[in-house]
Amino acid sequence: MESVCLYEGKAKRIFKTGDPDVLRIAYKDDATAFNGEKMEVLEGKGRLNNEISSLIFERLQEAGLDSHFIERISETEQLVRPVEIVPLEVVVRNIAAGSLVKRLGVKRGYAFETPIVEFYYKDDELGDPLLNEAHIAALKLAEPEELKQMQEMALRVNEKLLHLFSESGVDLVDFKIEFGRREGKILLADEISPDTCRLWDQKTGDSFDKDLFRFSQGNLQDGYKMILQRLGGRKS
Amino acid sequence: MESVCLYEGKAKRIFKTGDPDVLRIAYKDDATAFNGEKMEVLEGKGRLNNEISSLIFERLQEAGLDSHFIERISETEQLVRPVEIVPLEVVVRNIAAGSLVKRLGVKRGYAFETPIVEFYYKDDELGDPLLNEAHIAALKLAEPEELKQMQEMALRVNEKLLHLFSESGVDLVDFKIEFGRREGKILLADEISPDTCRLWDQKTGDSFDKDLFRFSQGNLQDGYKMILQRLGGRKS
Ligand SMILES: Nc1ncnc2c1ncn2[C@@H]1O[C@H](COP(=O)(O)OP(=O)(O)O)[C@@H](O)[C@H]1O
Ligand SMILES: Nc1ncnc2c1ncn2[C@@H]1O[C@H](COP(=O)(O)OP(=O)(O)O)[C@@H](O)[C@H]1O
Ligand SMILES: [Mg+2]
Ligand SMILES: [Mg+2]
Repeated sequence: MESVCLYEGKAKRIFKTGDPDVLRIAYKDDATAFNGEKMEVLEGKGRLNNEISSLIFERLQEAGLDSHFIERISETEQLVRPVEIVPLEVVVRNIAAGSLVKRLGVKRGYAFETPIVEFYYKDDELGDPLLNEAHIAALKLAEPEELKQMQEMALRVNEKLLHLFSESGVDLVDFKIEFGRREGKILLADEISPDTCRLWDQKTGDSFDKDLFRFSQGNLQDGYKMILQRLGGRKS
Repeated sequence: MESVCLYEGKAKRIFKTGDPDVLRIAYKDDATAFNGEKMEVLEGKGRLNNEISSLIFERLQEAGLDSHFIERISETEQLVRPVEIVPLEVVVRNIAAGSLVKRLGVKRGYAFETPIVEFYYKDDELGDPLLNEAHIAALKLAEPEELKQMQEMALRVNEKLLHLFSESGVDLVDFKIEFGRREGKILLADEISPDTCRLWDQKTGDSFDKDLFRFSQGNLQDGYKMILQRLGGRKS
C-alpha cells in the first residue's frame, strides 16, 4: 500500500489513507525502553501487539467505550479515526510496580484499595514528568472537563480490562493509555498491548509484558503470545 | 530554659513546655539546601526567620486563618500549639521558578494565570516526591476532606501573602507550608519565612530568599533583613 507516513513513533507508523476520516497504523517490531536508551528489533512483536490491541479495543467498543479503533486489516495493521492526541500519558495502577515503588517507597506487589490514576506529560525530552491537575491547566494541555472525562474513561477501561485479564488468570498491574480529540469528543486512542501494560501470571507472578525486555527477564514474544492465547486470540 | 527537646529538624528545635497545650520552637542559624547536601551556620538567620515568621503568622491570624501560632517570646523563640504534622509539603506557585522550570520546561519568571498548588510527600529519604490526590489517598496521608481544606487554606494564605509582599515591592514567587491536625481541625503549622518562600524584588528581580544561599548569590542575612524591614519589622 503506497501512502504518506504522517508520523513514525517508537512502536508504530501512522499513514494517511484515501479517506481523510481514516488513518492506518502499522505496528513495528522495534522494542525500546528507558526513554529509548535500550533498543532491539524483536521479530513478531508488531503482529502480536496489533492483534492484542485490536482484540482489546474490540472488547472495549462492545462495552460502549468511544475509541479511535475501526478494524484490524492485516497482521500488523489496523485502521483508526484520526484524532488530535492529548499530550498526556494516562496511567492506571492496581498493584504497585515499576517507577512508583521507588518514588513512593511502596512495596512491589502491594494491591491498592482503589486504582490510582496518574497523568504524565507526554514529552520525551522532559522524561514524561508526573503532573497534577493544576499543572495540566497551567500548561493548557486539557480542559478540566476533558480531564474529568479522561479520568472516568481510564477507570472504565480498567474495570473492563481487569475483568478480561482475570478471566484468563492474569493480573492487570498497571497500564498506560492515550486519548485524542475528534469532533469535540474525547476518544480512547493509541494502543493497549503488553508494551503498555504490566501483566503478571496470577499463579507464578511471571511477567508477560515489556518488563521481559526492559529487564532481560525472558523471551518477549513468548510472553506476548501467552497473552494473546489467554485472551482467546490466535494460538500460532 | 531547661526543657525536653521533642524534635530537632534542619532549621528548628521543638521543645515541650510546662503546659501540654504549648510547644516552644527555637529557630537555629543552620542553613541547609538540596536535601541537606549543602550546610552552613549563618549567624542571625534564626532570629530573622523567627521574627519574619511570627510577623506573617500574626497577619494571617488577623485575617482569620487558623494556625498553631501563639506568640513570639524571644529573638529566636516562639510558642505554638502542638499538632500532628500532616506529612505533606504544600507548595503554592505564582511564578515559575526552581525545580518546576526544569521539570515542566516552563520559562523561569513565567506568571501563572492562576496559582498552582502542589502536594509533596514530606519524606527526606524519598526526596520529597510530588503526589497527586490518588497517591495521598493510597498512602493514607490525609483524608479527601482534609486535602480540600489544605488546598483552600493554601490559596487563602497565598492571597494574603501576595498582598502583604506586593505592598512592599516584593513578588511572592512560591512558598511551602505545612499543616497539622489538632482537636479534629486542620491548622497551618511550621513556618513561613525566606527559608520557605521565593521572594523577588519587583524592581530588580533580586532574590531575598534562601536561593541566596542555595546558589551562593549573595549574603543571605542581608536579603532576610530586607524582607523583615519591608514587612515593617525591626530595621536593625
Ligand atoms: N488515532 C490517532 N490519531 C493520531 N495519532 C495517533 C492516533 N493513535 C495514536 N497516535 C499517535 O501515534 C504515535 C505513534 O505511536 P508510537 O510509535 O507508540 O509513538 P511514541 O514513540 O510517541 O510512543 C503516538 O504519538 C500516538 O500518540
Ligand atoms: N506546631 C507544631 N507541632 C508539632 N510539630 C511541628 C509544629 N510546627 C512544626 N513542626 C515540625 O517541626 C519540625 C522542625 O522543623 P524543621 O527544623 O523545619 O524540620 P525539617 O528538617 O523537617 O524541615 C518539622 O518537622 C515540622 O513539621
Ligand atoms: Mg507509544
Ligand atoms: Mg523545615
